[in-house]
Amino acid sequence: MADGPTLRGLEEKALFDLDRYLKERALLVERELAAVVDEPAGAAARLYEAMRYSLLAGGKRLRPVLVLAACEAVGGRLEAAMGLACAVEMIHTYSLIHDDLPCMDDDDFRRGRPTNHKVYGEAIATLAGDALLTDAFKVLARKSAQNVQPKIVLETIAELAQAAGSAGMVGGQVIDLLGEGKAKTIEELEELHAKKTGALFLASVRGGARLGGASEAQIESLDAYARALGLAFQVVDDLLDVQGTPEQMGKRTQKDQERGKATYPAILGVERSIDLARELESRAHRALAGFDTGADALRHLATFVVERKL
Amino acid sequence: MADGPTLRGLEEKALFDLDRYLKERALLVERELAAVVDEPAGAAARLYEAMRYSLLAGGKRLRPVLVLAACEAVGGRLEAAMGLACAVEMIHTYSLIHDDLPCMDDDDFRRGRPTNHKVYGEAIATLAGDALLTDAFKVLARKSAQNVQPKIVLETIAELAQAAGSAGMVGGQVIDLLGEGKAKTIEELEELHAKKTGALFLASVRGGARLGGASEAQIESLDAYARALGLAFQVVDDLLDVQGTPEQMGKRTQKDQERGKATYPAILGVERSIDLARELESRAHRALAGFDTGADALRHLATFVVERKL
Repeated sequence: MADGPTLRGLEEKALFDLDRYLKERALLVERELAAVVDEPAGAAARLYEAMRYSLLAGGKRLRPVLVLAACEAVGGRLEAAMGLACAVEMIHTYSLIHDDLPCMDDDDFRRGRPTNHKVYGEAIATLAGDALLTDAFKVLARKSAQNVQPKIVLETIAELAQAAGSAGMVGGQVIDLLGEGKAKTIEELEELHAKKTGALFLASVRGGARLGGASEAQIESLDAYARALGLAFQVVDDLLDVQGTPEQMGKRTQKDQERGKATYPAILGVERSIDLARELESRAHRALAGFDTGADALRHLATFVVERKL
Repeated sequence: MADGPTLRGLEEKALFDLDRYLKERALLVERELAAVVDEPAGAAARLYEAMRYSLLAGGKRLRPVLVLAACEAVGGRLEAAMGLACAVEMIHTYSLIHDDLPCMDDDDFRRGRPTNHKVYGEAIATLAGDALLTDAFKVLARKSAQNVQPKIVLETIAELAQAAGSAGMVGGQVIDLLGEGKAKTIEELEELHAKKTGALFLASVRGGARLGGASEAQIESLDAYARALGLAFQVVDDLLDVQGTPEQMGKRTQKDQERGKATYPAILGVERSIDLARELESRAHRALAGFDTGADALRHLATFVVERKL
């Protein structure tokens, strides 16, 4: 009887359903994003079309989901963090559009579709990226001002700009670009990824928590969580590039190797890279030790980031 | 006696010395800008070099000077507006770097020197632009938070992002790009320029005043001033493109005509364009009727923008 269908049903219900959580949160964010780029037809209609093409192209919405999950982990209301959720996805999308440009990585496919410049041309793609980046700060400022104290929003804006700019994401992209084909140590690789992808994860988690009313101590714990998660994400990404097929990934794979880029599997080997990813997953979980079940989404997200593949 | 050297000296001293004002204010801004991009040598040193190359290349610094002058016009302290002064110049500089790219206007010279991508390559130039745009919001948020109420800074950030993004500068650039060679009416030309160049002038003046403690009524008057000034700037720019030489301008001229772009002289003729510029100058002056001598810098700037050439 104890193993009967009714009780099993209850047990399953009690388990955290990450798949459902991801879908529901992604849907919430996508509804807001669609409104952000829903401009009436006008002389610049082509710009909004190009912005929508990349912004509403699906994807896991991992960064905005992290924003919302961090907000929930400290007991905040989702509305408080929605401006930041939109902003980080807009910034992530702009960075993909610019990274794909012929003068950068020169990629033709992204998420299984032609890249922005293949459809709209280089000029419009460059400008669509510029607009998404700029509009992100407008959305963050305006949406958050409705729900959160201005002082807290201001600090969130400053941290996001720091994470995305010369000291963060853009700086990381330059290091990556100039370092192609150069041998790297693990330390150099960590610095590169802390800037190129880690900074935006960090700003997502810290900002989501801050907007949700986190204490400084809570932000510090979540900081450690986000650093481990961001690095784990990159290690797994490197592994996927080695092992995935273009069909699985929706974009060209094995390009790191072709370009002689330093990767975790290239430096550590595949087995030790997998170990590292698992160790980072544990580190992320330990950082959440002081949080109650409100942080379960964050816990499952750390596992999800590593398990996508391993 | 009344015409003697002593009295003349006094008279001249009593006159507003715009040349000196421009130089002093530009120097203040340049000192702050140099600090913003003064990064210690590191893996991304080349990025900062490219940012400095364009940001510290001189120029009139018209937008940041307008920010400071608007702040002074309402009795504000310069420190309150310095973050915005830096931010608007960083955003203006990013827009020049991206506009000069081969996929956009494909220009080789700017302010008498090779354009950013001619020196650093397209990838670094694109990223230097991205970094200047992103860092602008960090500088605005951090510097202003030291001197101004967070609520006021937040509104200034939102307005700046609105002015620079899809609804403003970037949108204007797209309209310009897609409209090359198409006949335009004066109304279409005004809409184009209100977005492409006017929006950033407007955000400079409104934001400078707001950070300086302006009332809503004062901001509305300065709004009218800035709209007239921005349009006057563009009319004169079009005239300069027709009449200036590359040596005078430090960049290629007559390119509007080569590309079949609609300009004021092309639509109205040179004489009526000059009349329009003068009428806009008067309109700018009238908008300042309610302000005391604190707004003298703004008054002289309106004249300066038109007299650069006419």
